[in-house]
This record gives sequence, structure tokens and C-alpha cells, in this order.
Amino acid sequence: MKKKKDFSAEVREMARKAKWASHQLAQLSSSIKNKALMEMSDELDRQPEWLIRENQKDLAAGRKLRLSSALTDRLRLTPSIIHGMAEGLREVARLPDPVGEIIKMWKRPNGLMVGKMRIPLGVIGIIYESRPNVTADAAGLCLKSGNSVILKGGSEAFHSNQAIGEILRKILVKTGLPQEAIQIFPYTEREAIREMLQLEEEIDLIIPRGGEALLRFVVSHSKIPVLKHYKGVCHIFVDETADLEIAIRVCLNAKVQRPGVCNAVETLLVHEKVAGRFLPKIGKALQKEGVELRGCPQTKKILSHIKGAREKDWFEEYLDLILSIKVVKGIEEAIEHIARYGSLHTEAILTSDYQNAQKFLKEVHSSCVLVNASTRFNDGYELGLGAEIGISTSKLHAFGPMGLEELTTTKFIVYGEGQIRG
Amino acid sequence: MKKKKDFSAEVREMARKAKWASHQLAQLSSSIKNKALMEMSDELDRQPEWLIRENQKDLAAGRKLRLSSALTDRLRLTPSIIHGMAEGLREVARLPDPVGEIIKMWKRPNGLMVGKMRIPLGVIGIIYESRPNVTADAAGLCLKSGNSVILKGGSEAFHSNQAIGEILRKILVKTGLPQEAIQIFPYTEREAIREMLQLEEEIDLIIPRGGEALLRFVVSHSKIPVLKHYKGVCHIFVDETADLEIAIRVCLNAKVQRPGVCNAVETLLVHEKVAGRFLPKIGKALQKEGVELRGCPQTKKILSHIKGAREKDWFEEYLDLILSIKVVKGIEEAIEHIARYGSLHTEAILTSDYQNAQKFLKEVHSSCVLVNASTRFNDGYELGLGAEIGISTSKLHAFGPMGLEELTTTKFIVYGEGQIRG
Repeated sequence: MKKKKDFSAEVREMARKAKWASHQLAQLSSSIKNKALMEMSDELDRQPEWLIRENQKDLAAGRKLRLSSALTDRLRLTPSIIHGMAEGLREVARLPDPVGEIIKMWKRPNGLMVGKMRIPLGVIGIIYESRPNVTADAAGLCLKSGNSVILKGGSEAFHSNQAIGEILRKILVKTGLPQEAIQIFPYTEREAIREMLQLEEEIDLIIPRGGEALLRFVVSHSKIPVLKHYKGVCHIFVDETADLEIAIRVCLNAKVQRPGVCNAVETLLVHEKVAGRFLPKIGKALQKEGVELRGCPQTKKILSHIKGAREKDWFEEYLDLILSIKVVKGIEEAIEHIARYGSLHTEAILTSDYQNAQKFLKEVHSSCVLVNASTRFNDGYELGLGAEIGISTSKLHAFGPMGLEELTTTKFIVYGEGQIRG
Repeated sequence: MKKKKDFSAEVREMARKAKWASHQLAQLSSSIKNKALMEMSDELDRQPEWLIRENQKDLAAGRKLRLSSALTDRLRLTPSIIHGMAEGLREVARLPDPVGEIIKMWKRPNGLMVGKMRIPLGVIGIIYESRPNVTADAAGLCLKSGNSVILKGGSEAFHSNQAIGEILRKILVKTGLPQEAIQIFPYTEREAIREMLQLEEEIDLIIPRGGEALLRFVVSHSKIPVLKHYKGVCHIFVDETADLEIAIRVCLNAKVQRPGVCNAVETLLVHEKVAGRFLPKIGKALQKEGVELRGCPQTKKILSHIKGAREKDWFEEYLDLILSIKVVKGIEEAIEHIARYGSLHTEAILTSDYQNAQKFLKEVHSSCVLVNASTRFNDGYELGLGAEIGISTSKLHAFGPMGLEELTTTKFIVYGEGQIRG
């Protein structure tokens, strides 16, 4: 345990080293970065026993702290989870390298050629909870995009994260890369995190991943830009003209395929003209899967056996086998409901009407808006970004899934022939 | 003067109204927005006397406060400045509307069509000092990009800003747009600004424009993302192979054409192999324009009559007819100097060497990097963005000049045919 006064200097020193490493990283060729990623995967695949032994220390400490079984599950490293981390790094190695790409170029009347070139952000701080595999995943994405990373995992995963970090850093040294490019934050005190969040000169971006309390803490204390995702209160609007077979398949998928994730649907909005035909069918299908339904008064007229939804249900991210249902007069009311209760995450319309499809796409301003597809597709892999470091529900810089491109910025480049400004 | 306890509720109410207005704004056609902008210009052109009378109140208060003549100059509205504001709005009306543009679209193996569509950010807060013309310029850019704006100008320009705001809002009402789309912040107390900076649910972006103290205040207190520009310590590196005629023309332009702005050059880095030929020429030319030179020891061997540069000179944004000069061994040392002392704003290389031009473009990570052109080109108009609301030296979201596109974000849109996730 360090004394309080030590944090400021030591945390700043970490961040400075990360910044200097980032200057080197920014210049690396894709092949060198890919080689390091592949060797990291191989080393993870060679070391499962050691990683599991280190993970046991965390699990033992967790038992003393009486961690819930859900938390313990998330904390546990198994041979298959470790192999999954290794495979994840191999996949990142195979993705195209965004750094150096010139995304557009144009010519000015005075002959200047102006372009925008992708460059790494610099240093990224990732603050996360529980799952130690995030350590390898996030480090891989940052390395590939030419960024240094400082990883602050949950204190309950301290030994596991240190061990994974040790393997990754060993390979950095072996492949001639600066080992300060990947640093595992060694402090568990809040005070130390607060110090890190002050370092706007050294750190370019903070990505918090975890519960709402963690996110609110980071946003309140950070002078560094933060990309965050508060919650996903996702909606599906079943329009009058929806194909009901598709509607049942999509609504079921969006609710039950993985109810504990942010892009699962939480509220169903149903056009009043189709409610009488659709609700009995979807109600039956959902209840067969164990989903608890909570309906508005009109819904309860059709599904009389279900619970009533209260005002707070419309704001709720259940992350569970619960769904609220509201009958609406039409697309206008659906869009208004989403604007009022939604969380800007993911919304879908199921319709056969061209105008309504276009209207919904245009007027709903969530990070991902879908026509006739499951909300579960709002995901970096599924949308084709190749990988994902999180989903942003803040609009600045990145809105929606963040892949490698979202870990870069662009600078202006100008080719001249001696032009001066008049 | 309002009581302290009033701010929280009233500022939040302003922001909420701005947010509701932003939902309407986001759906407007370009032609309606352009019509409002043109009518605003016409009304400004009809009202110079009234605006100048309101401006007199600020100037009179300024005399009592003994404002410096520089500040008074910036504060003063003249018929030509007012006409300039009107013309600025007309130019914004003529720019392409970024909202609704689909910047790319691709197809997934399961048939989903995935695209990214530009949408407004929502509500933008602009906190600025002195010049009242910013009120019209910023309001015009925000309206065109579909954003509501809350404008907090300097307290010394209170009446001028209120008057400009009144004209703009009158036209909003006349053209059927929500008048809450443009709001002039009516409080001058810091406490009220602090309240505004807490409203992360209502306000999407804060752009501070002004001195370093204002910027640090905003960054320290804001829970809302901030796009800022701290300072411009801009460099020109004169390489061994530079065309010396071009070098003299470009260096002169970058220093003296408008020395008080952020993209003026502050430090000249000169390759040692060309210093003996170049420094006497550029020294003479600069001194003829009244520029004070401060040189490193090697520079002083050639220009013995100039002042010595101290360590702190390399960090300095003079914003004045002062230039520091350093002789370097070559491009490596120049790039290192920029990484150490630069502010990520604007840097140029003057060279005839292909490899060095590419190396400089690739390895210098400032918001704008130029080859054989003046640093003065780092500007929204000059680079072809059409207009500019500021220059960002933070890398997130926008790095460099911010035009209309930078006042938007993108959402993912997905066209499906009933796909579900497996």
C-alpha cells in the first residue's frame, strides 16, 4: 500500500512513459504490430497454468470477501477463456491497420492539396471491472491502433490482470517495442484513479467500462475526454404493417437470445391496429421462454394476465427476462416515446411501409437505428467493425460501437508549393 | 441579479428547452434553415443603428471599468462589423448541409445493409469572450448544422449579445422555427456557468473560446465534453534543401501577416547546413518588419546582434512580433523539438527533399502539418471547410479547424429483412 502523497508523482510518471512510448508506437509498421500481437497470442496459449494459478489468488480473496457467484464467474479464468483471449488477439492482428490512412483529399483554388490522415489518439486509459479478459482485448486493440494504454481493472482481479499484463509486456520487450506501451495500473485506491483522471496533458482518452456508479465517478472527476455508455433502454416498434412472423422472430431474438446485455430490447411499442393480432402471439412466445411481461393499460386489455407497467418501467434497463409493452397510436407516438424514455442506444422498427421505415431511420437519433432486424446487431463485430472496445452513447467522437478507427483521430495534411496567405 | 439558489432550476430549464428545440431542428429541411439564415442577415443589415445603440451601453460600462483599448476595440460594433455578421450568415446559408448525409454504407454477409448517417449533436454551449460578432457567427453555424445553441458571451458585451440574440430569435419565430433554438445566456455569474457545465443530459458539447484561464475553468468544471484550443506554438522547419526564396516568403507571411493569431509561427527551426546562408537573409527581412528575434547560441553566432532565447521561449505563444530561432542538426532534431515544445496546433516543413517531406507529414502529429506552405493556412476557410467555429487542439472528435461537419456526429443505420442474431 502506497502513501497518499506518492500517487501524484508516480501516476504522472506512468502516464509520461506511456506518452513517450506512444510516439514510437505511432510510427510502427503494421507488420511489426501484427507480429507482436501474434506472439502475445502464442504466449497466452503457452501459459494457461500460470495464469490460472495467479487467478486463484483473486478467487481466494474473493471468497473471503464473499463475492457473489455472478461476480466470481466473471472473475474466473479457464483454459477456454484464456484461449479465447489469444484468439481475440489473432483476430485483431488480421484486421486492417487504420493508422496512416488518408480518408480524403481535396484541392484548394490556390493549388494546396489538403487531406485528412488517420493518426493514433496517443494514450488511452481504460477503467473496467471484473472480467480479466478485457485486459488482453483492450491492450490488443490499442496496440494495433498505435496507442499506448493504461489498464485499470477491478481490484478483485488484481493478480489476474497483473499476470496478463506481464505476458503482454514480455512480448513487447522481445519484439523490440516499448514496454511502457501497455501498463497495468498498480493502485487500487480511488485517490490514484482520481490522479490519473487529471492528466489531460499526458492521456488523450478515458474509456470506463462497468456499472453506472463507476461511470458517474469517472465523468465527474475527469479532465480528460471520456467515451462512455450509460445504459441501453432499447426499443422495438412493431408497426401496423409489420410482417408478424418476422416480428415474432425478431422480438424473441432481441429479448431472449442474451437478455443481460445492453443491446437486448427492454420495451416493445406496438401499433394499436396490430396489437389485437400480435400481442397474444408474442405474449405466448415470450412467456414460453420465461419472460415476465409488464404492460400499459391497453396491453392489459389484450393480455389480461400480465403485470401492469409503471412509469418507471419505461426508463428501466432490465438486463433480464423482463419486457415492458406499450400500445401506441402510430409511428409519431413511438418516436416520441423513444425520445422521452430512450437512452440513445439501439432502436428498431418492424414495418413493411417504405415511408415509415425512412421516417424512423431519420428521426430516431440513437447510436444504431434498424429496420426489420434485431437490436442485438448493435455490436462492433456484427456491424462489420471487426472488433469493439465498447459502445458509446455519448455523441462526441464516436456514437455507437467503437472499433479500431474510433481509437484514432485525423490530422490535416497539406502539400504546398510555397503558398502564402494573402 | 438573481439569487444563487435560482440558477440551478433556471439554467436547467433553458437547457431543456434547447433540447426540445433540437429535436425539431434536427428534422428541418436545408431550405427552411437557409431561409431563416438569409432573413437573419437581412434583419441585421436593417438594424445597425439599434445594435450600435445597445453596444454603446456596453462601451459606456467598459469605460467605467477602464477596459483596455484592445478590449474596447474588440467590443465595438460598427456598421461594417454588423454588415460582416450579416454576410457571414449568408455564406453559411450557401454551404452544403451536412445533416442526413450517409457517409458510407456496406453490406454484411447476412445481408444487412449498414451505413453511417450524419445527425446534429443536439445542444451546443458556446462560452466566449469579448467580440459580439461571435454571437451571430456561432448561432448561424449551429442552426445550419441542426443544433440548438446556448451562447454565453463576455459580461462586458452583455447588451450587445442580447440585442443580436433578439434579432436572431425574432426571425426564428417569424420563420416558424422554435425560438429556444438560439438562447443567449442571461447570467454573468460564474456559478451560473458552473450549473450549465453540469447538464450532461441536456447539453452535448461545450466550446469555450477565449483565454487560457477561461478554458481551464471550463475543462475543470464540465461534465459535458469540451472541444478546446489551448494555444498555438507553431513551428516552421527550414530544411537543408529548402528553396530559400520560398522560405523567406513563407516565414515572413507566417510571422507578420497577422502576428496576433494562433496559427502565426512562433519558432523557426533551421537546418545547420543552411543556417549560414538563410539566417542573415530572413533576419534582415523580419527585422525590417519590426520582428524581435531571440536565438539559440548557434543562431547568435550568425546573428550576433539579437537577443538570446531562454528555455521558456520555446514554450511561448508570443502572439506578437517576436520569433524564436533554433539551429538544428536535421529533421530528427526538428521533430523532437516540436514533440517536446509544440502545442499540437500547426507545423510546416520547407524542403525540396521527398523523403523528408513525407517523414515530417507522417511523424509530426499536430492538427495541421504542411509542406512548403505558410502555417497561416490552418483555418477553416483556407482549408476548404467553408467556415469555422474554432480550432481544436484536443484530439477527440475534431482535431484542427471545426466546420459544419464537426458540429455533427454519425449514427449507424441498418436496413434488414428480418435478420436475427444467431
